[in-house]
Amino acid sequence: MAAVKSMNDLFVHTLKDIYYAEKLIYRSLPKMAKQAASPELKQAFEKHREETEGQIGRLEQIFELCEVAARGVRCEAMDGIIAEAKDIMEEVEDAEVRDAGMLAAAQTVEHYEISRYGTMIAWATQLGMTDAAKLLQQTLDEEKKTDKLLSELAVKRVNQTAA
Amino acid sequence: MAAVKSMNDLFVHTLKDIYYAEKLIYRSLPKMAKQAASPELKQAFEKHREETEGQIGRLEQIFELCEVAARGVRCEAMDGIIAEAKDIMEEVEDAEVRDAGMLAAAQTVEHYEISRYGTMIAWATQLGMTDAAKLLQQTLDEEKKTDKLLSELAVKRVNQTAA
Repeated sequence: MAAVKSMNDLFVHTLKDIYYAEKLIYRSLPKMAKQAASPELKQAFEKHREETEGQIGRLEQIFELCEVAARGVRCEAMDGIIAEAKDIMEEVEDAEVRDAGMLAAAQTVEHYEISRYGTMIAWATQLGMTDAAKLLQQTLDEEKKTDKLLSELAVKRVNQTAA
Repeated sequence: MAAVKSMNDLFVHTLKDIYYAEKLIYRSLPKMAKQAASPELKQAFEKHREETEGQIGRLEQIFELCEVAARGVRCEAMDGIIAEAKDIMEEVEDAEVRDAGMLAAAQTVEHYEISRYGTMIAWATQLGMTDAAKLLQQTLDEEKKTDKLLSELAVKRVNQTAA
């Protein structure tokens, strides 16, 4: 990681981390949507891809506010989560079990993001970056909504079929 | 990953994933506690280590219920989260900024666990594994409490000092 000496540096470092993560998710969602057997799950992945595009746009606005070039730094956690999702997609033959596994991976993605955005809102507020905090809050609200939708899908549909 | 053909296989696979993750957290927490400048943060890490020991014990009970040997499988997501925490511990010199970064990493750990335990409770319930679901619920309640405590610490103390 680049030299982090202040809270501002830490904020920018974490901004780059989540920017990398969101772009990786954006690239991964079409494959997940394609592999999903459940139409609702497919639709949830497609919808989340559109949302993710908007979230990437917000991050780019925050880079501008920070006067820093929009560039990611490798986020090993998200690499790991996506690698696990890929394993499930490629190695689980049963469609219902695969859906359950992909759904679980998607919820792990959401929770990673919820944790990161929550942290960044606190830091932005401390640093007096009100506009950045507002943009981050919009994304956090979307992520929480997506997680809730995925939980409902998990409990009500996919698992019921698979068990 | 080993052959996952059924929901039961997926449950056991995820059990092994979280078992690996909890053991990694258990090994990492003493270093995090040692590095924490804030006494409250140090105490939170120490307390969470004790809790993690109990959570590992519960996972071992679930392995027994599943009649499967307690053994982890590499969880790349947790590897990534812990690697990030290590970077912060080793590379951030300012104690207050380091605390803020470690706290954020710890919240990411909690959210990973919250996501995993939530998923596993749903699956255990579907599979009729009532005892396993109860054990997982106890751990989920603890993780949510820890995340709340860390959020309070983050907002009230560490960040205020660091900004």
